[in-house]
Amino acid sequence: MEYPFVPSEDVEQAAVQALQMRGIQLEDIAQLTYFLQSPYIPDLTMEECVGSVKSVLRKREVQNTLLTGIELDILTEKGQLSAPLQQLIQKDESLYGVDEVLALSILNIYGSIGFTNYGYIDKLKQGVLERLNDKTTGKVNAFLDDLVGAIAAAASSRLAHRYRAELEQKPDTLS
Amino acid sequence: MEYPFVPSEDVEQAAVQALQMRGIQLEDIAQLTYFLQSPYIPDLTMEECVGSVKSVLRKREVQNTLLTGIELDILTEKGQLSAPLQQLIQKDESLYGVDEVLALSILNIYGSIGFTNYGYIDKLKQGVLERLNDKTTGKVNAFLDDLVGAIAAAASSRLAHRYRAELEQKPDTLS
Amino acid sequence: MEYPFVPSEDVEQAAVQALQMRGIQLEDIAQLTYFLQSPYIPDLTMEECVGSVKSVLRKREVQNTLLTGIELDILTEKGQLSAPLQQLIQKDESLYGVDEVLALSILNIYGSIGFTNYGYIDKLKQGVLERLNDKTTGKVNAFLDDLVGAIAAAASSRLAHRYRAELEQKPDTLS
Amino acid sequence: MEYPFVPSEDVEQAAVQALQMRGIQLEDIAQLTYFLQSPYIPDLTMEECVGSVKSVLRKREVQNTLLTGIELDILTEKGQLSAPLQQLIQKDESLYGVDEVLALSILNIYGSIGFTNYGYIDKLKQGVLERLNDKTTGKVNAFLDDLVGAIAAAASSRLAHRYRAELEQKPDTLS
Repeated sequence: MEYPFVPSEDVEQAAVQALQMRGIQLEDIAQLTYFLQSPYIPDLTMEECVGSVKSVLRKREVQNTLLTGIELDILTEKGQLSAPLQQLIQKDESLYGVDEVLALSILNIYGSIGFTNYGYIDKLKQGVLERLNDKTTGKVNAFLDDLVGAIAAAASSRLAHRYRAELEQKPDTLS
Repeated sequence: MEYPFVPSEDVEQAAVQALQMRGIQLEDIAQLTYFLQSPYIPDLTMEECVGSVKSVLRKREVQNTLLTGIELDILTEKGQLSAPLQQLIQKDESLYGVDEVLALSILNIYGSIGFTNYGYIDKLKQGVLERLNDKTTGKVNAFLDDLVGAIAAAASSRLAHRYRAELEQKPDTLS
Repeated sequence: MEYPFVPSEDVEQAAVQALQMRGIQLEDIAQLTYFLQSPYIPDLTMEECVGSVKSVLRKREVQNTLLTGIELDILTEKGQLSAPLQQLIQKDESLYGVDEVLALSILNIYGSIGFTNYGYIDKLKQGVLERLNDKTTGKVNAFLDDLVGAIAAAASSRLAHRYRAELEQKPDTLS
Repeated sequence: MEYPFVPSEDVEQAAVQALQMRGIQLEDIAQLTYFLQSPYIPDLTMEECVGSVKSVLRKREVQNTLLTGIELDILTEKGQLSAPLQQLIQKDESLYGVDEVLALSILNIYGSIGFTNYGYIDKLKQGVLERLNDKTTGKVNAFLDDLVGAIAAAASSRLAHRYRAELEQKPDTLS
């Protein structure tokens, strides 16, 4: 039987595989989340950060955005886009902002409190973002670096909301 | 014991009460959701629409936005804002777009597929939106009408995602 | 001499040519703008609408977004994207919202007052949007229809701002 | 003769005055812009940064947003908002993100390339943002600090676009 739509499972698997194929492990993203959120959540573990990243990646909008951005990176790497889009993405042109637009659509799903976290790690080129920005490798990661930062910041917002809920359920832990 | 933050329960209750105090029942919003989504989901019930609206209202970002927009409406109604902001909101000035900005922040939480639904019912002044736009009553609903439309469109996006999940679990219902 | 960046003129020309190559004339977009704005601006002419569309198309962010969206449509039409992204765009899947995300980034440049106009014409499938949505042609316009609607709504917002400025300079035209 | 709308001049003046009344000079914002953009534009002057900030402040959407955010800060300072909104803004609650939503609506007008700049200076509490975040003064600047950061980042995006245009007109200045 043919579905009139693409099965959600296929979309989710493809998104996670696309990340891996581009050299990104969930732990790489979770480390960014840990960097952002550990100052605010005592005893935060890497395991919780990985869990939060996984939850973000379960959202359909995140999967769609990842698949689209990574496809554009790969096609650019293979030189298969038309001019001048090929050059704009290849050079990661400072006036080309579609990568940031896609990143923001991921952040928005977890509300606005993650905006500043995203900007902060993007500028610092923290963790895996430094490797993704290495222009000497021939790899094109114009979209991927922004998307990875956005997923990390979204996972961070998610933890902030959850931590509050936890505090409210155990009021004796509050000073 | 004093919390270092506002309890989430207080925020949620206040948001729902603010809607009621401004004459909006959950059913009013759910009717907009039904209008938007019933062409796409066979056998959709009002009960499911009410449930979806309730889920949207459980999101902290939605509550914050509602409380802020309704407060600005009420303060304007009482004439307590400074000039010229008082006049901008009172006249629901066509070049004043902060109400749409707040509405969009609600939509974003459920992804981008609700954007067009929001614009559509806002223009049509469907259902309760007609009453909210009646300028002869002395009431100021400059923010509320946009927020109600956004909650209805968000609840509609949420149903679209859920309906797909349901279809995928019962493949025999597909032709 | 080689520029370290893509000349802006090349980007602008490519964006306008991409529209034409996909069968969209500036007049098609201007007609949507006229439909949206003529109820509010007495004596609005098609010429003014074409002028406003041209101004919107002069913005770099709009050009970048157009080039990216149209490229994805064309690659999909040629069957050159990876699965499942190929299927998502080809079927113009209702849960795929990256096209709306790109459309919104165009609208945002002219502020929030155009959001509802965009949603409205998108739902009505007004003018050229009906043709772009015809799924029987083998053409893929999953991105283009949203981008055309967004450019028309942006041009409409721009006219609203300009008309106000004009009214304020000729106060005797006001009743 | 009474206008059916608020004169644009009044809105612009009120926005600039509101900034001054809250202790913010254009130079304070321009210094943030200089901090962000001077690494990329050789010979950038403070005068050019002040000019760019002034241009951003001439946009109607920016004025509307500033007036709304500052009004909410002032009303909170006077204790005139309802509970729990009063407490949410007074404590500058980490889960309250309406201030970031307003900031983003300013950034959007200059496209997406300013997102990361905004996040970066907001996190660093660079320049005047440190003073605005001083919670010991009794002043409430929950909205103002985000809006100032957004205006500075928007002015920075604007300079980036202008600098490119300048380079393209004087190709002999390029190595």
